[in-house]
Amino acid sequence: MMGNFQVRTDLALEVRESYEEDDIRLRGVKVEEQSDKQKEIYTTIVHIETENGAKAMGKPVGIYITIEAPNMSSPDEGYHREISIEFAKHLRKMLGKERDSILVVGLGNREVTPDALGPNVVNNLHITRHMIKEYGRLPSDVEKTGEISAIVPGVMGQTGMETLEIIKGVVQETHPKVVIAVDALAARSTRRLNRTIQITDTGINPGSGVGNHRNAINEETVGVPVIAVGVPTVVDAATIVNDTMEELIEQMDHSENMQRLGGTLGTLDQAEKHQMIRELISPHLNTMFVTPKDIDETVKYLSYTISEGLNLAFSQKQE
Amino acid sequence: MMGNFQVRTDLALEVRESYEEDDIRLRGVKVEEQSDKQKEIYTTIVHIETENGAKAMGKPVGIYITIEAPNMSSPDEGYHREISIEFAKHLRKMLGKERDSILVVGLGNREVTPDALGPNVVNNLHITRHMIKEYGRLPSDVEKTGEISAIVPGVMGQTGMETLEIIKGVVQETHPKVVIAVDALAARSTRRLNRTIQITDTGINPGSGVGNHRNAINEETVGVPVIAVGVPTVVDAATIVNDTMEELIEQMDHSENMQRLGGTLGTLDQAEKHQMIRELISPHLNTMFVTPKDIDETVKYLSYTISEGLNLAFSQKQE
Amino acid sequence: MMGNFQVRTDLALEVRESYEEDDIRLRGVKVEEQSDKQKEIYTTIVHIETENGAKAMGKPVGIYITIEAPNMSSPDEGYHREISIEFAKHLRKMLGKERDSILVVGLGNREVTPDALGPNVVNNLHITRHMIKEYGRLPSDVEKTGEISAIVPGVMGQTGMETLEIIKGVVQETHPKVVIAVDALAARSTRRLNRTIQITDTGINPGSGVGNHRNAINEETVGVPVIAVGVPTVVDAATIVNDTMEELIEQMDHSENMQRLGGTLGTLDQAEKHQMIRELISPHLNTMFVTPKDIDETVKYLSYTISEGLNLAFSQKQE
Amino acid sequence: MMGNFQVRTDLALEVRESYEEDDIRLRGVKVEEQSDKQKEIYTTIVHIETENGAKAMGKPVGIYITIEAPNMSSPDEGYHREISIEFAKHLRKMLGKERDSILVVGLGNREVTPDALGPNVVNNLHITRHMIKEYGRLPSDVEKTGEISAIVPGVMGQTGMETLEIIKGVVQETHPKVVIAVDALAARSTRRLNRTIQITDTGINPGSGVGNHRNAINEETVGVPVIAVGVPTVVDAATIVNDTMEELIEQMDHSENMQRLGGTLGTLDQAEKHQMIRELISPHLNTMFVTPKDIDETVKYLSYTISEGLNLAFSQKQE
Repeated sequence: MMGNFQVRTDLALEVRESYEEDDIRLRGVKVEEQSDKQKEIYTTIVHIETENGAKAMGKPVGIYITIEAPNMSSPDEGYHREISIEFAKHLRKMLGKERDSILVVGLGNREVTPDALGPNVVNNLHITRHMIKEYGRLPSDVEKTGEISAIVPGVMGQTGMETLEIIKGVVQETHPKVVIAVDALAARSTRRLNRTIQITDTGINPGSGVGNHRNAINEETVGVPVIAVGVPTVVDAATIVNDTMEELIEQMDHSENMQRLGGTLGTLDQAEKHQMIRELISPHLNTMFVTPKDIDETVKYLSYTISEGLNLAFSQKQE
Repeated sequence: MMGNFQVRTDLALEVRESYEEDDIRLRGVKVEEQSDKQKEIYTTIVHIETENGAKAMGKPVGIYITIEAPNMSSPDEGYHREISIEFAKHLRKMLGKERDSILVVGLGNREVTPDALGPNVVNNLHITRHMIKEYGRLPSDVEKTGEISAIVPGVMGQTGMETLEIIKGVVQETHPKVVIAVDALAARSTRRLNRTIQITDTGINPGSGVGNHRNAINEETVGVPVIAVGVPTVVDAATIVNDTMEELIEQMDHSENMQRLGGTLGTLDQAEKHQMIRELISPHLNTMFVTPKDIDETVKYLSYTISEGLNLAFSQKQE
Repeated sequence: MMGNFQVRTDLALEVRESYEEDDIRLRGVKVEEQSDKQKEIYTTIVHIETENGAKAMGKPVGIYITIEAPNMSSPDEGYHREISIEFAKHLRKMLGKERDSILVVGLGNREVTPDALGPNVVNNLHITRHMIKEYGRLPSDVEKTGEISAIVPGVMGQTGMETLEIIKGVVQETHPKVVIAVDALAARSTRRLNRTIQITDTGINPGSGVGNHRNAINEETVGVPVIAVGVPTVVDAATIVNDTMEELIEQMDHSENMQRLGGTLGTLDQAEKHQMIRELISPHLNTMFVTPKDIDETVKYLSYTISEGLNLAFSQKQE
Repeated sequence: MMGNFQVRTDLALEVRESYEEDDIRLRGVKVEEQSDKQKEIYTTIVHIETENGAKAMGKPVGIYITIEAPNMSSPDEGYHREISIEFAKHLRKMLGKERDSILVVGLGNREVTPDALGPNVVNNLHITRHMIKEYGRLPSDVEKTGEISAIVPGVMGQTGMETLEIIKGVVQETHPKVVIAVDALAARSTRRLNRTIQITDTGINPGSGVGNHRNAINEETVGVPVIAVGVPTVVDAATIVNDTMEELIEQMDHSENMQRLGGTLGTLDQAEKHQMIRELISPHLNTMFVTPKDIDETVKYLSYTISEGLNLAFSQKQE
């Protein structure tokens, strides 16, 4: 349904919701759900298993884990350690044995508040590669963590380079076994903003993220596996307008108190309605995003939750 | 028309545009226009002269000068000095003789990119008060500028205080003759974002600015005249949705290719249509704003243009 | 001894160390020591009880609590919660009953890394005043904390105003019962940098802090009690040179392998030696400070330790 | 003389000053001086032409251009455009024909004020590579500038990687013809701080910069020519102490009013004196730097002067 309109979501979960359950299963998309009601953490794992499923979902074949926690962006003394732990658990599983040497990439623009998630996460990581290179693995904690390195490449307007070029270059010189790319995402719905973490083994794909990457950053392009970790912090401005208008038209069709309009609008088919909406949405809106006013606090809290989760996942203590 | 709906603009110019010219003149609102086509600078001065006009406009009695320059936010080696000069000219006139001692207040949240305009402007001001207090007025340039002081009070979530409380306190201790409050504004239309400067002698009023001030900051509340300088850097999310939907309904009424719908919708009156829209706009949207993706570069350039304009206006060389 | 030379320390503990124990006690300065060897926290409480003692110490009559912890600036997952707890314990005692409404002032320059301690501490405080003013004391946690407000006034070069002027103004408008001023300090010895917290009920005094305040910020000048919390993050450049040279001269007098020089230098008295040093220290050095290269990480960690301690002290849960 | 002691300067000019003119010329070091007294700009070009000269100077064979301007760090409306122009003139000559595609690297730590010069310079560059790649060379200004790209790699404690590794990787992926590395330097004398720009075709060498690079970043290691641009913003703490003590000893030897000491100290030879100083300098001091209190303002101004100079040098208009 979204396919022929430019509504955009970086969350596989939201794409999946636009389909009937049976329909999507037939196409090779499997969905698992787990929930911890006490901790208010809801986890959905979407497996896109076939090219057919990938086409239907508009996302590559792979695993998409979504951790939803309504309280994620509210202040908390321990920066929601329970969420960090859940996140670390899934990330560890995805990393498998490849925890010896990891490059974390903080994507996004540190000067634009909702896009600063990646750079902020990197700020709070325990970086160990240089110490292990110099002193070897010590008998103390350092020994137990792999070689962690990190970079904040900046965005194309600041560097004149594709982020992919920078990452490829750094990977070729420093030989990490896996890259973890942390990025701020766009959701379809404001309800999901700042309360959802997505982990995927498919990397970063063109058009995703707040800054809309132009090149894929994945195993194929980078040369080592790329796990992408993202939190939706914005909704595209065009999406918000589109969604409200879709609802307007839907209500015109169905709702009790718009009965009078129903008959006539019913004579427009879906394609005609979308055409109508598309014409009304200002092209300006495609370069704009929608974000909450308290995004500064929210991104600060989320960054701690994610960086703490990464630190936990990289540490080998808890196995 | 906007009156009974919560669509918001901080620009008097945009309110004025929602009225017929004759209509508004009758209510005590006078409009002057100047333009410099070569420099592409368009200046509109709205005088709200009566309480009746103030009520119609939803803004206090006073003068609202709007400088529009389409290129304002594009990169420029001299940071658009021609705009700084135009801005300084109008500000000087509004300041009149009160240039001996001025407190500049950088309103807004420096951690939220489109709201950081005020704090950024203060960063580039020539602050002189402490030097004049210590050394007196020297025979060099310093002598020619008044006592300039500045503060970035922060926002209520950071301070626990009303901005007004901080400003009042500082004014009572340091006795400036006038306060200039610089703030990021909300426009109604994305077309005005980042290309418009508004100067007004009415100060800051409740509900205005990106952060939506709760208290007026004006001569009455602060005790000395307050000039507000603002640039719209965001549009309220609800406004963008509302506007597109108003256009949808308008087109349903009038447009050729929606003829089929026209008849039916025509039976809804204005109030019913607005009611319909209001019900559709998610309450979430009231805490959200829309801003361009390159807002970091834009706010950087705008800040220089404004601070340079303030430095020019405060200097007494060019008289 | 330091008296007639401009060597500077903001730590009462370091002044006290320049005196013999008996000597200082006679002058009305009482010293208490506590230590927790397991946690490696050493606390010294200096009571300056008489004007005579104040003169000898070069610091006002009052209580100076110094918490030393060698590991304070090393990375720690919990940001050294044990130090935050010790700090909170002493601060609570000093606050006494005055915990209903507190204004925290983050002194210093957020743009100069070792001077950004105060501003950074404020960034991580739980600010409650505006919520209590709006919603009253709720039955949840908020109820248990007093009205906490905070301000980062900036430095004179940025504001053109004395910090005292800003604080006085804000206090008069918002009526806190006590002010807590957090500031980066200068130590005499590099060994104390970033591992010492000083708490005093005497406020901030002229010439103290990295930025060298010109006016006292204390109960007398502000109108309510002022507790100062500081961590030394710099040593004055002149102090470091002076100290090494004093040691040079001392060694010339006493050390075995400088015997040959001893005889001659012995003929200079203390005053002559200090005169000699003073002449050699470049006047440039008085506007310079010495700080460690990793001061960014250190100030980040210290800020969390202090802000967590403040949050603990303000909360009323643990009584 | 400095050779056997760890006093450090990144300025070839300062090394050269420790030698007699004839002495240095004999060893293959040529010095040219130019001065523009009206603009108060003094330029010294040191050519190290032989390996013998390189050994004597402790710096590689190559050209070291030093632009000294006493007013460089004082506020100026045009950010000292006359200095930017002088800097651009020398840089252009050094670049020669290689202006088609340039990678600017902003070395240093953006979180430590005096080390943030490189990152700040990059913030104000006109980045063009991505636009030229996408749109080709336009007939407007863009056409006249080469492909400019830039990166701020961060420091090893933040990334876990050698800066060299990052630069090599990026160069291999993006193929610039030349790298310009901008870095904050250490001077020997506080008098040179923040008023000197050094340009050299020898790149960055181990132990240089505020952060003390461990690996050379030069044509040999990177694969394309590396021009280093630096401004001294700090003095090593050990250097300041050493220098003052050297002066103390010198005065003891020679000065009128220390006649009494002269005789005895004369019996120590140079080596003994330096040994004495070395023993007195605390090892702590090697991890510390000395910088002026107003370093935030200074680095801000210097960054504009340098980035404007780079923009001028890259533009092809003025030829």
